[in-house]
Amino acid sequence: MRVFKLTIAYDGTDFVGWQIQPNGPSVQQRIADAVKKTTGEIAIPVAAGRTDSGVHAIGQAAALRLKTALSPPTLQRALNANLPSSIRILELAEASPTFDPVRQARSKWYRYVYNDGVQPDVFANRHSWVVHYRLDVNRMRKAAEAVPGRRDFRVFESEWPNRATSVRTVSRCRPYRFGDFIYLDVEADGFLYNMVRAIAGTLYEIGRGKWPVERMQEILNGHDRALAGPTAPPEGLFLMRVDYE
Amino acid sequence: MRVFKLTIAYDGTDFVGWQIQPNGPSVQQRIADAVKKTTGEIAIPVAAGRTDSGVHAIGQAAALRLKTALSPPTLQRALNANLPSSIRILELAEASPTFDPVRQARSKWYRYVYNDGVQPDVFANRHSWVVHYRLDVNRMRKAAEAVPGRRDFRVFESEWPNRATSVRTVSRCRPYRFGDFIYLDVEADGFLYNMVRAIAGTLYEIGRGKWPVERMQEILNGHDRALAGPTAPPEGLFLMRVDYE
Repeated sequence: MRVFKLTIAYDGTDFVGWQIQPNGPSVQQRIADAVKKTTGEIAIPVAAGRTDSGVHAIGQAAALRLKTALSPPTLQRALNANLPSSIRILELAEASPTFDPVRQARSKWYRYVYNDGVQPDVFANRHSWVVHYRLDVNRMRKAAEAVPGRRDFRVFESEWPNRATSVRTVSRCRPYRFGDFIYLDVEADGFLYNMVRAIAGTLYEIGRGKWPVERMQEILNGHDRALAGPTAPPEGLFLMRVDYE
Repeated sequence: MRVFKLTIAYDGTDFVGWQIQPNGPSVQQRIADAVKKTTGEIAIPVAAGRTDSGVHAIGQAAALRLKTALSPPTLQRALNANLPSSIRILELAEASPTFDPVRQARSKWYRYVYNDGVQPDVFANRHSWVVHYRLDVNRMRKAAEAVPGRRDFRVFESEWPNRATSVRTVSRCRPYRFGDFIYLDVEADGFLYNMVRAIAGTLYEIGRGKWPVERMQEILNGHDRALAGPTAPPEGLFLMRVDYE
């Protein structure tokens, strides 16, 4: 059995999310279908992060265990030929037989995109959160500076307690403005359920002036999800990269 | 009765096209719905060009006849508040009572977008034609140079003869490359049904090397739609601007 590491981009709009589900098409199922067509094998790819419905990826990482004798470039081309154009395998390489995309991930980088133009960009609907207030990126940046560090982040966790621990290390949390778009980059050694979207919703309340900048520190000191802002919608979220040792 | 000129952007993906149809949501219907909600009036906007299902607009022009006493900025804001975020009224101004967006249009500019990267951009699917050949933009440009001028363009008309005349004046036909995208800009005093998409499909065959550059001149000399290339898909087409006297 050979193990391949895949780097995958997808537009999450048309999918129920990464994971196979009975109620609609998933990215995982589409890749499994492409594998079946290409090599005849039944194999389910395992991803570093199970993105939710509507969430996008530019650098999802996944492992695929196959018996195929195909070379990595040939396998990559054949899989892409059998995938819809909303899913692309950007890289495919042979990995160690012990490669585990979940446990061995050292850090993940997510980007959350807001679109706050006076006239929202009609073509950016599916790939950003169209907000109806102009956001003050300087206020957001000041508030975001409080986020990095090692701490219990359950205040940003949707279904606590659903894990052994809610302690994570955030190494980066910073918004940037590009015209009518704000990119919020968050990097951590791991993420709780809906964590980036909860941070994005909190910074939204601060950016539009509903909450003071200092509120972020108070929220971080708390442990109740109700203290933080709303869960920002999935269409603004992109899994950018997963780093391994 | 007052007449307003609207400049409208929309993502055509979710619509059956500009025009009201029984089989799904149209841009025209959505705007009529917003008018009803805003002013209580029943009014159907009339557009310069009736874009097909899946075709986008960045600068569609339309006329709206209303009794409302609202000022143009207030009306614009209220309509936008009642429109889905995939439709935006970018400009709204009071026009002459004789304003006719169809007959008075002096020229229209369309852009056709191809995406020919080795790895297609998963986020550009709905807003470009994902082609599986690298296109030679220099060959396309040479061929496109034969298009401008005043002539019978029925070779690029899908349902000939559906108009009094197929004679049009094309003032610009030029492709540009931007990374993995090619923008084909076509400007004319008027367009036949599916004309830009037929030109785009013809340049596609020349760009991928199936046909020689000289073939464009032969096609232009002919009158049979079967001579030209395929009708390129709607998702690559954008109505950019409509110019009036």
